[in-house]
Amino acid sequence: MNALDSKDLNTFQAPVIRELEALESDLKDALRSDLPLLQEISAALTEAPGKRIRPNMLFLASRCAGGSPEKAAAAALAVELIHTATLLHDDILDAHMTRRGRPTVFARWGADSAMIMGDYLFSKAFARLGEAKLDSAIEILAKVTNLMSLGELIQLQTRKDIDVSEEDYMEMIYRKTASLFSAASECGALTGNGSEKFRSEFASFGENIGLAFQITDDLLDYLAADVQIGKPIASDFTEGRVTLPFISAFRNAPEESRERVRELFHSSFDDEANWNEVVSFIQNYGGIEYSLNKARELGEKAKGALTPVSPSRERDALCFAADYIVHRISPFTA
Amino acid sequence: MNALDSKDLNTFQAPVIRELEALESDLKDALRSDLPLLQEISAALTEAPGKRIRPNMLFLASRCAGGSPEKAAAAALAVELIHTATLLHDDILDAHMTRRGRPTVFARWGADSAMIMGDYLFSKAFARLGEAKLDSAIEILAKVTNLMSLGELIQLQTRKDIDVSEEDYMEMIYRKTASLFSAASECGALTGNGSEKFRSEFASFGENIGLAFQITDDLLDYLAADVQIGKPIASDFTEGRVTLPFISAFRNAPEESRERVRELFHSSFDDEANWNEVVSFIQNYGGIEYSLNKARELGEKAKGALTPVSPSRERDALCFAADYIVHRISPFTA
Repeated sequence: MNALDSKDLNTFQAPVIRELEALESDLKDALRSDLPLLQEISAALTEAPGKRIRPNMLFLASRCAGGSPEKAAAAALAVELIHTATLLHDDILDAHMTRRGRPTVFARWGADSAMIMGDYLFSKAFARLGEAKLDSAIEILAKVTNLMSLGELIQLQTRKDIDVSEEDYMEMIYRKTASLFSAASECGALTGNGSEKFRSEFASFGENIGLAFQITDDLLDYLAADVQIGKPIASDFTEGRVTLPFISAFRNAPEESRERVRELFHSSFDDEANWNEVVSFIQNYGGIEYSLNKARELGEKAKGALTPVSPSRERDALCFAADYIVHRISPFTA
Repeated sequence: MNALDSKDLNTFQAPVIRELEALESDLKDALRSDLPLLQEISAALTEAPGKRIRPNMLFLASRCAGGSPEKAAAAALAVELIHTATLLHDDILDAHMTRRGRPTVFARWGADSAMIMGDYLFSKAFARLGEAKLDSAIEILAKVTNLMSLGELIQLQTRKDIDVSEEDYMEMIYRKTASLFSAASECGALTGNGSEKFRSEFASFGENIGLAFQITDDLLDYLAADVQIGKPIASDFTEGRVTLPFISAFRNAPEESRERVRELFHSSFDDEANWNEVVSFIQNYGGIEYSLNKARELGEKAKGALTPVSPSRERDALCFAADYIVHRISPFTA
């Protein structure tokens, strides 16, 4: 779902393709074990790899900083392990049965194994950072994982709450997504000898691209049809999470329509007609346009953060990613 | 359960009582939050404090090393946060409804909250270590938390396996318990400027006292009667975990008796007579004596590790703890 298509991925990956290949083998090494259960779960995790967007950003930022390749490799490994760990725990919380078209660890091995495997990956990440003596990266990533878990706690409390404000939502996606994007980008920058200002430019780039990424992801949840069942996914809404497309439409809608979606929100959602009704609601009351504009704005802000950075192929690839993340939505809004 | 009684605790705590008091307020600070759910869980966690055995050891080791009180405070906080996080996750895995006589976070708030709260405490621990620039402690504690989660994965796989060897058991309790005891003691030592050898003496002390602690804990599970229901707890056995008292008795028992406990192990265990039968089995085939001797041996080994350390009130308190941990079993074997 929501994949960068392969042509666009190439543009983003090209300058650091060797680093990304080395990361795959580092990940396999990090997950290697004599324990059969760990072997099986690790195989499942590595046979359906993600896009490695966060390490990709980190490698590009490190190149911009003239950073140490060894440090970048260790930090990128840690960032991807942390990201994977949060997916494992999130899938438990959301009872997700599939991810990237395959059964989740939660679905195949149960909540207990998924939880412990997540703990294993978290601690492995910090162990590797410790070995590599990446003290600043440890500080940044520990704070971010703490923020992410706080975000999950808040999300537990606001589930099935239809009155989430845009401000609350932005806070939430900062904690859940943008903070790790920001940390990845900043960790890349700090593998070199850049100034505090240089680091904060990359942190700001990562934060804004992360916010834009999550908003378009949340938009795609309403817009992209599930190929197998031929209807919009809207899993956020049916699982009781309101996101920006809904929040902005709900704000504009007349009381009568609000009452109706309030009913739908608290219903069991087993009727296909209801899905379409929610998607129409969002379209009719400007939720798609509003969210798209917000994502565009954040994408521009991300690129703006890199304006002071000397032009290079790597900086261009980062700016390209900021554009692409927003434009991947266009096939669905044409 | 298995509490050090207050007189014995005093002897162990006295040299570092101020550090332990400061730890309580550091823990409260670390858990402070605006989020109501976090406030509630934090209140529950701090209103029934544990014995703080690991920080206590750490503070004593730090004193022996002439270590920095600030570093010791940060490391002790991290160790206790990590310990609490593992308890939260363990209680989910074992479906424990009470701990220290109160409902667990799992029982009161559910598995989701307990899992995320554990993640929150883990990451908080590393964030604090990062802030305090305790790089070596980060390396040690990240490795140990990784080892602990590996231990949990192995335990998931060996649950309901009656044929666990003593060697497997010792590995398991090293991972689950002794590794954190060892890390706590070593982290205390490294707050000073001691040699590699000095550090490893404390690591060895912690490891051996941790092994002895877990063996006596496992013994008490068979010996200490549950005050409320007036029968032995034997929760390990009924939950499908075999521990040293059982492993050593099972090794000695004739085939007929082995067959019988094998049946009991796989039964639903709803008959009170069955509990007594298992306890008798362990008594009859030397499981209690064997485990007690093993714990004594490890307690001596722990004290032996500190022989090269200059005598002091703090070293004596550590040695006292090694003795006490083994002797706390005596009321039940008299």
